[in-house]
Amino acid sequence: MKILILNEAQQSSSHEHIERRCAATPATVLKLVRKGIAVYLESNAGLLSHYTDSDFEEAGANVVATSNDIAGEVDVLACVNSPSEQVVSTLKANTLVIGHIDPFFQQPLVSKLAASNLTTLSVEMIPRSSRAQKMDALSSQASLAGYVMVMKAANYLPSILPMMMTPSGTIKPAKVFVIGAGVAGLQAIATAKRLGANVLAYDTRPVVAEQVESLGGKFLKVDIGETGQTKDGYAKELTDDQKRVLADAQKDAITTSDIVITTAQLFGRKPPVLINKETLSLMKPGSVVVDMAALSGGNVEGSEPGKISVINQVTVIGSGNWSEEVSRAATDMYANNVFNLLDEFTKNDPLRFDVSFDDEILASSVITHDGKITNETLINAYKGA
Amino acid sequence: MKILILNEAQQSSSHEHIERRCAATPATVLKLVRKGIAVYLESNAGLLSHYTDSDFEEAGANVVATSNDIAGEVDVLACVNSPSEQVVSTLKANTLVIGHIDPFFQQPLVSKLAASNLTTLSVEMIPRSSRAQKMDALSSQASLAGYVMVMKAANYLPSILPMMMTPSGTIKPAKVFVIGAGVAGLQAIATAKRLGANVLAYDTRPVVAEQVESLGGKFLKVDIGETGQTKDGYAKELTDDQKRVLADAQKDAITTSDIVITTAQLFGRKPPVLINKETLSLMKPGSVVVDMAALSGGNVEGSEPGKISVINQVTVIGSGNWSEEVSRAATDMYANNVFNLLDEFTKNDPLRFDVSFDDEILASSVITHDGKITNETLINAYKGA
Repeated sequence: MKILILNEAQQSSSHEHIERRCAATPATVLKLVRKGIAVYLESNAGLLSHYTDSDFEEAGANVVATSNDIAGEVDVLACVNSPSEQVVSTLKANTLVIGHIDPFFQQPLVSKLAASNLTTLSVEMIPRSSRAQKMDALSSQASLAGYVMVMKAANYLPSILPMMMTPSGTIKPAKVFVIGAGVAGLQAIATAKRLGANVLAYDTRPVVAEQVESLGGKFLKVDIGETGQTKDGYAKELTDDQKRVLADAQKDAITTSDIVITTAQLFGRKPPVLINKETLSLMKPGSVVVDMAALSGGNVEGSEPGKISVINQVTVIGSGNWSEEVSRAATDMYANNVFNLLDEFTKNDPLRFDVSFDDEILASSVITHDGKITNETLINAYKGA
Repeated sequence: MKILILNEAQQSSSHEHIERRCAATPATVLKLVRKGIAVYLESNAGLLSHYTDSDFEEAGANVVATSNDIAGEVDVLACVNSPSEQVVSTLKANTLVIGHIDPFFQQPLVSKLAASNLTTLSVEMIPRSSRAQKMDALSSQASLAGYVMVMKAANYLPSILPMMMTPSGTIKPAKVFVIGAGVAGLQAIATAKRLGANVLAYDTRPVVAEQVESLGGKFLKVDIGETGQTKDGYAKELTDDQKRVLADAQKDAITTSDIVITTAQLFGRKPPVLINKETLSLMKPGSVVVDMAALSGGNVEGSEPGKISVINQVTVIGSGNWSEEVSRAATDMYANNVFNLLDEFTKNDPLRFDVSFDDEILASSVITHDGKITNETLINAYKGA
């Protein structure tokens, strides 16, 4: 069994976004090699997450000058993002492709992966079950994103987060309001609490109130009637009436906060707008808003992915390529997810990835196989589009 | 009694450094006005620390278009930095000038202040006594600087500071080494500990080991024989032999750390070089070094004030105009220091600042009065230069 790791900074060099992560680390290479798997690594694949080719070689990887040298011979292509069409065209049939495929928004690529007879495992489609946790890349990455977003907000705030009591006077702790207490939101709450801020949080799923409180945050209680979560663990979309009641209740929390972090995502859909320009104009001068949903459409009116804008004296940070801020940690986590996937499904035969649609993790995350798109949700979404 | 507050962003607009702080806040203006003091504020003086002219007017300040309108009539000129020669030339005799005068390096300005018959209070010369604490601007600002430096370092580190234990693997806490445990160093230690890092610290004054440990840091023990501190609370300069023993002992701590923060300052002198390029080259790729002494000469070879350089894959942050990162908090603290100074020395007559050289705080911090330079240390330093 042969596995190829791409240098994705190179792959992405034509775009604005330069991928700094890598799908393997020297530690995961060592574990793969010990299982008898041959690992090929495109030169400098780890450079931007601070792992050198010689670190990988010491762990047993074969470093190749370019992916073209070996792509046609491998059984697994492990990516962070989706491979380029050029790379896809060089792979042999039945190769397993692993990555953040972004399948709801990449129909042409998914069709090509299917047509090329490749088996595609989209890590975003891994279910949120306890068995799948160790492979759940969305969670591992979102957790780091939650940390990064608070650190970025703190760096733009013209004050400090902790209370400071000195003979020269007392600075009160900053007020931080986190909207959406999923994995990223919970890590944002934990990070803001570490830094000594007063933290308030809201989520449409009342079930998470306890988690917020166990991290030391307060939970904003709003009665908007029936809400709930999908089987994927995402919040259900609200009705227009519910949205209005909620917006009113949140306005007060937003306008009295120093930092607001919005993390409201809907599975495979555009996220809701939570803060409009009118609410922004009511915030204190110098306040900071982080829109973690900026890449997929935005929770904050006027936010732009990867950009920092000042709107009515409020700094609005549109989350973009956040993982570049913690590329080594993000690589460490993601490489573990990839290793755990390979490890889990080579249990029967250490040198064959066992694509079984009876397995709930693979049934959900394998989106192309044997020439077809295999995921029902995706097929329905494509029909609707 | 009339006091004038400058718009220092405007004053400094010809330099690279734009001063975002202000010597007053609406809260301190209110307290001054209640004492019967008339406060004049140059328009937009608080803008960059997020206080508007109308905030100040509500507190009772008179906003003037430019300092020229009133400078010749005031009794006190309160600055963050030193006033420009142009402003100095408009003041009447016996006006009290308060600010960070940087007197050891500003002999021509100090001479002009003396020749103009002004009373100059240099906040850097306020002694470190318990009575002076509430006026001690160097301490109040250094404390914020310690926080800022850790936050900046954290933002450049390609990993996170806290330990993160997840089903996708464990990220170990970052190792932070703080050299110099004065006010800034102690706040850096506290901030890094808040964020969950492993913190090691060193100071030539063994007396601070207990303070380091009470913040949760470890103290690096090195036997370099006799050391001590000056009466101003600064570390004494070491002999060449002591420096060599120390450098060897620190090398190991530096090269195994993810973040190193150097805060070694000597009073009125160039700071020592603690990290040379050879040591930098032994650090892990992606590590971060913050040189808090960069402005006065630097603890790190190759650091530049206000610049971020990558030297041998190590990010070196040269501290420059750090207060711009927390302009509101820095303004709040400094404005309190200025108010406390005025409050302390108008106790006998609420409308007259009592310049008494029998007072230990004024004897040390008032550097010009009655046409003369009045500080002995300064006079000797000028003679030596």
